[in-house]
Amino acid sequence: MYQTEFAWLPFFKGAVSAYGGDKLAFAQAELTLGLDGLGKKANVSLEQTADGDGYAILKTAVGYTISGGDTGLLYGVYAFLMKMHAGQEIETPPTNPAFSLRMLNHWDNMTGQIERGYSGNTFFYKDNRFCYDENRIRRYARMLCSIGINCISINNVNVHAPADEMVLPSLLPEVKKLAALFRPFGVRLLLAIDYSLPARHGLTTADPLDREVQAWWEKTIDQVYAEVPDLVGFLVKADSENRPGPYMYGRNHAEGAGLLSKPLKKRGGVLVWRCFVYNCKQDWRDTATDRPKAAYDNYAHLDGQFDDNVILQVKNGPFDFQVREPITPLFYTMPKTVKALEVQIAQEYTGHQIDLFYMPPQWEEYLAQIGDARPKHICAVTNTGDDENWTGHDLAQANLYGFGRMAWTGKAEPKETAETWIELTFGLKGKAMETLLNMLLVSRDAYEKYTAPLGVCWMVRTQGHYGVQPEGYEYTPWGTYLRTTHTHLGLDRTKTGTGYALQYPDAIRDAYVNVDTCDEKLLLFFHRLPFTYRMKDGRTIIQRIYDDHFEGAEMAEGLLAAWKTLKGDVPEASYENVLERLERQVVNAKEWRDVVNTYYHRYCLIADEKGRKIYD
Amino acid sequence: MYQTEFAWLPFFKGAVSAYGGDKLAFAQAELTLGLDGLGKKANVSLEQTADGDGYAILKTAVGYTISGGDTGLLYGVYAFLMKMHAGQEIETPPTNPAFSLRMLNHWDNMTGQIERGYSGNTFFYKDNRFCYDENRIRRYARMLCSIGINCISINNVNVHAPADEMVLPSLLPEVKKLAALFRPFGVRLLLAIDYSLPARHGLTTADPLDREVQAWWEKTIDQVYAEVPDLVGFLVKADSENRPGPYMYGRNHAEGAGLLSKPLKKRGGVLVWRCFVYNCKQDWRDTATDRPKAAYDNYAHLDGQFDDNVILQVKNGPFDFQVREPITPLFYTMPKTVKALEVQIAQEYTGHQIDLFYMPPQWEEYLAQIGDARPKHICAVTNTGDDENWTGHDLAQANLYGFGRMAWTGKAEPKETAETWIELTFGLKGKAMETLLNMLLVSRDAYEKYTAPLGVCWMVRTQGHYGVQPEGYEYTPWGTYLRTTHTHLGLDRTKTGTGYALQYPDAIRDAYVNVDTCDEKLLLFFHRLPFTYRMKDGRTIIQRIYDDHFEGAEMAEGLLAAWKTLKGDVPEASYENVLERLERQVVNAKEWRDVVNTYYHRYCLIADEKGRKIYD
Repeated sequence: MYQTEFAWLPFFKGAVSAYGGDKLAFAQAELTLGLDGLGKKANVSLEQTADGDGYAILKTAVGYTISGGDTGLLYGVYAFLMKMHAGQEIETPPTNPAFSLRMLNHWDNMTGQIERGYSGNTFFYKDNRFCYDENRIRRYARMLCSIGINCISINNVNVHAPADEMVLPSLLPEVKKLAALFRPFGVRLLLAIDYSLPARHGLTTADPLDREVQAWWEKTIDQVYAEVPDLVGFLVKADSENRPGPYMYGRNHAEGAGLLSKPLKKRGGVLVWRCFVYNCKQDWRDTATDRPKAAYDNYAHLDGQFDDNVILQVKNGPFDFQVREPITPLFYTMPKTVKALEVQIAQEYTGHQIDLFYMPPQWEEYLAQIGDARPKHICAVTNTGDDENWTGHDLAQANLYGFGRMAWTGKAEPKETAETWIELTFGLKGKAMETLLNMLLVSRDAYEKYTAPLGVCWMVRTQGHYGVQPEGYEYTPWGTYLRTTHTHLGLDRTKTGTGYALQYPDAIRDAYVNVDTCDEKLLLFFHRLPFTYRMKDGRTIIQRIYDDHFEGAEMAEGLLAAWKTLKGDVPEASYENVLERLERQVVNAKEWRDVVNTYYHRYCLIADEKGRKIYD
Repeated sequence: MYQTEFAWLPFFKGAVSAYGGDKLAFAQAELTLGLDGLGKKANVSLEQTADGDGYAILKTAVGYTISGGDTGLLYGVYAFLMKMHAGQEIETPPTNPAFSLRMLNHWDNMTGQIERGYSGNTFFYKDNRFCYDENRIRRYARMLCSIGINCISINNVNVHAPADEMVLPSLLPEVKKLAALFRPFGVRLLLAIDYSLPARHGLTTADPLDREVQAWWEKTIDQVYAEVPDLVGFLVKADSENRPGPYMYGRNHAEGAGLLSKPLKKRGGVLVWRCFVYNCKQDWRDTATDRPKAAYDNYAHLDGQFDDNVILQVKNGPFDFQVREPITPLFYTMPKTVKALEVQIAQEYTGHQIDLFYMPPQWEEYLAQIGDARPKHICAVTNTGDDENWTGHDLAQANLYGFGRMAWTGKAEPKETAETWIELTFGLKGKAMETLLNMLLVSRDAYEKYTAPLGVCWMVRTQGHYGVQPEGYEYTPWGTYLRTTHTHLGLDRTKTGTGYALQYPDAIRDAYVNVDTCDEKLLLFFHRLPFTYRMKDGRTIIQRIYDDHFEGAEMAEGLLAAWKTLKGDVPEASYENVLERLERQVVNAKEWRDVVNTYYHRYCLIADEKGRKIYD
């Protein structure tokens, strides 16, 4: 069995320090525990400042001074310990986070199950009630704090009863207790709410413009904040995938959000409003409707109409956490609106924490595309569960670590992040470090090659979203069509097609709509082209697809071979954990390779130039 | 709400007669009740004979004499009442059933849910215990008896705990009680068992050649028959779709069946052994393995090795109750083995009792193909549930009625069966009779046209099996592949292909393997052909597919239009019940039409000669 303390803080062996309300004393206690765990001595003085999250570590004549605000001081302590453990330069000039709210969304259901969870069940609930190990929760809070996460939503955005009652007197005392466990670590709670709640608790409607509804929420929010005064606020998935929302009452989303943001503002709370709104009952015959256009279409025109404590939470891409998508165009617009970037470290479409998929290379691209339009806040759908190692796949811990680090620095830094994580977690050096570093860095490229050709999404199995099913989503209402024919593949999203590309600022749009300048990895996302179209290197699209799929599957085998060289370098339990998953990944990669190659071959009947096996 | 007495016995308004153990008295009481319900008087004498199921109705100077054996007398009484109600000639020369065991299989789970049930939940169980309305069970038994059904299995062939305990002391008393409710009607019970049961109840194995296992079953069967002496026997789904079976212990199915048939024989019981055995973990790359070959391959060589109280229950077709399949070749072989023909009146692949699908036309083809090789017994997977009207769709009652009638006469007689059922159920005459008769008779043709082209199966949605998903099963382990390409469609099952056709007797094989003599409706089941292949009427295959799909969807609209003319002729509740389903059928039919046409068009890019809309 794993130690749940595992991950990047191996020097903390046991329970967290007691917290009596004094942040400074708590930081001191954690520092002492950490140094004990490291077996090191150091002369460190802590200085509390007026800052919030920021901190600095200065060298002094006798040792170090860590200074920081309420939470910053603790961040500084953990940074100090991790740097010491990793053998890095400890002195740290004053540092402040790039994103204000650094959030994790738990899609945990009170049944115990996690929607899109690949690390066991939730560690918050069981059998429709709160049920947790307080020590585990404290260790989780410490882990989050050590990477700067300062907010978690604790219930699924698809709010299923009884989780809808977390804002009501029936479950609020439980929320209060849980908030207290996270509080010492500066991790505040966010509650996902059901927009139709008033209509099921005393009223006949949940119309945001209805006076009674407004009064109902004001009273409810007052009650909530009386119990949990530092609650971050509410998280809402409205009018999305059959969830209730303001559209049910003929109101737009600014009107809908205002209902909640106004009373929340009085209490210092925010309203996190997800922009994942699209027509999930599309007729596949309808080629004008294009799901990627939906977020922009639903929100862009509402700029300036949201209160300043409303945060529009926008997924990185216009579809839904696919292996490769362009950045959502909404990031470039709505200057008067506060936004959060939402990524998903739960590997829903990226291998279920069976296949290795290290995400910072993906995030680096997102941040580069967003550029100066970087939103104020950031969020990730978490990959944690009650598996002993937190994330199912040991190496998936690197994504949680990497997310926190990026949320602080504003940079993805794939290589540096991986190195530090490996150093902290496994303490590898030299060739072993190089091997694991390379595994992480190539993993996304491997996965993309054996799964998604050139920006073609949604070849995943519709049931569960693991494995390959090329036309599983074809002819469904989900807005996710390939429309492959004997001659052509890809979708035209330029002005001659769905017009999605026109949602971008001119320069970006111009690059995408021109087949010669379009990022080749997104070529078929934006363009419908013949199988025989010649790419820049002279290969046809179909040849490129065959090549990628053979290469991707080989890379998966390479990952397995590389890991085998690390036997003895990593703890045996970790070796076995990853080995078993890599073996499954190799099988999965071959299946993707053969199915996708056969799928296209049956349409185009063009042979592989290299004569490799493509099945009939 | 419906009356549950509804169906073809509308003259029985209430509860069934009391049964005190005297069959003659019971038959007399049912006769009296029926005559009262009909509001008729008749001088009828009942004569008990030594026969079992057979009966006769003779005219006498003053009225009628109904003579028959224990069960036959009751069959005669119901026949008398139905004929009187339908205004048919009542006198009936001595009649005996064509099939000895006339069985229904309930795929009912003790959770309450029915596997492939489209008429609500089971009326036997709830929350993992027996739970039923005794009066409803008696009415059901009467209904079955009125059409000659003499055996029902009461639990799903996929035996899920706790249903596996029906043969153990824990649930046997419940089985005994239920058997007593059916007994007056000559309906005997059959229990589906879990082949691995001994290994989970005291032993370490369920190996059929193990002495302890043999002793365990002998004792268990003794216990069962002590409680239910007239039990028909056991029903087994072994080594099929992940169910346990003798293959787990390296034994063949004759060895496996012998374990149970020997002790059952001592008690006068039979063993119904399903032949639905195939590799459900096939690699799609493997083109030599062909699922339709599986039943023959698994069983044909075992002829003569089964005890004479073993009944091999063989599905009509070699796949699984698809819209059109050839008859399973196993029927033509194994002359020393007792067999049962298994059909499915639950509309799993034929419209879920939403779409109208009257089955006797299909059965007429089966019986014609089987010819002299007709098996001794017959079985249907039932379409009944706790919906007030028993079968969800009112008109689906005709399939239950028709099955019983065919099981007695050995003929499907689609027209006569439909006429009588309509007469009994709705009492329609003239134009209204013609309208409903025609609806039933064309329904299968309509459904086939808008769903399955020329013997291509498995275009159904993998989840639930309703609606269209052309490549849903492609690349899965289920052995059900289309392998469509730009140029070709269909599967070669001749000697140049999988060789499935070689399992038939020479004359049948020769007809199928020759593309010119092959039944056109099975053309693509047996042959892989170009889209441009010319059929006998000069149309290309692709044109025929387009035509069929447009015609089928039009026929669905025609069914709806026809039904609307019957408003006022049928009870309002029935009118609404069928109307609502036909409206859904029209939507479903259009979806099938458009998706299948588009699916093939994308491959072949051949336009419809008539210029009708085929979506991109």
